[in-house]
Amino acid sequence: MQVINLNEKFSLFNETWTPKLVGELNGQHVKLAKIKGEFVWHKHDDADEMFLVIKGSINIEMRNETVTLNEGEFFIVPKGVEHKPFAENEAHLMLFEPAGTKNTGEVDNEFTIHNPQRI
Amino acid sequence: MQVINLNEKFSLFNETWTPKLVGELNGQHVKLAKIKGEFVWHKHDDADEMFLVIKGSINIEMRNETVTLNEGEFFIVPKGVEHKPFAENEAHLMLFEPAGTKNTGEVDNEFTIHNPQRI
Repeated sequence: MQVINLNEKFSLFNETWTPKLVGELNGQHVKLAKIKGEFVWHKHDDADEMFLVIKGSINIEMRNETVTLNEGEFFIVPKGVEHKPFAENEAHLMLFEPAGTKNTGEVDNEFTIHNPQRI
Repeated sequence: MQVINLNEKFSLFNETWTPKLVGELNGQHVKLAKIKGEFVWHKHDDADEMFLVIKGSINIEMRNETVTLNEGEFFIVPKGVEHKPFAENEAHLMLFEPAGTKNTGEVDNEFTIHNPQRI
């Protein structure tokens, strides 16, 4: 049981596309990620995924629409929906998803993180 | 599937201690609340509860310690732990907890909200 300061946690890492585990509740994980550039198309068949922008702006491309999220905005990608996050400039995100959700969903590639680091 | 802007949602209500539903994922609810003053002691036997401060500062008193949360900080109250939120000045919170979690836990009183309004 400890107070988590988001800015302090974000200061602990610089790498992009490597979500860090900062909290756990009711079988869900709270993660922080820095992103820049384009991710890969993927989906999570059993997991809704929430993106909350803490700093910057991101786009989440889906097959039938693209949403733009600015600081202080969130979006929930429903399970099974293919999506591809993109950020022109570095953006900081808080993610909520079930424990065990893999960042690249059904895809395995150089972005895949199997066991997110707890910070 | 829509983008949720936290400030816009907070502008839609003024009442304190009445969490509003703004998102749902994996059986969990995302709620926004304005709080000021002192709540009641309560606990959630089956639900961890996450408090993220969007604006202002709050205290969460527990039986063996009190934590202070400032803007950009979060804390998870584990299931079964008695707690009492307090804010000297109005503070804005984002809450994460299982769908169906009652704001006053095992207690029923004038603060109790049985069906949070979706905004």
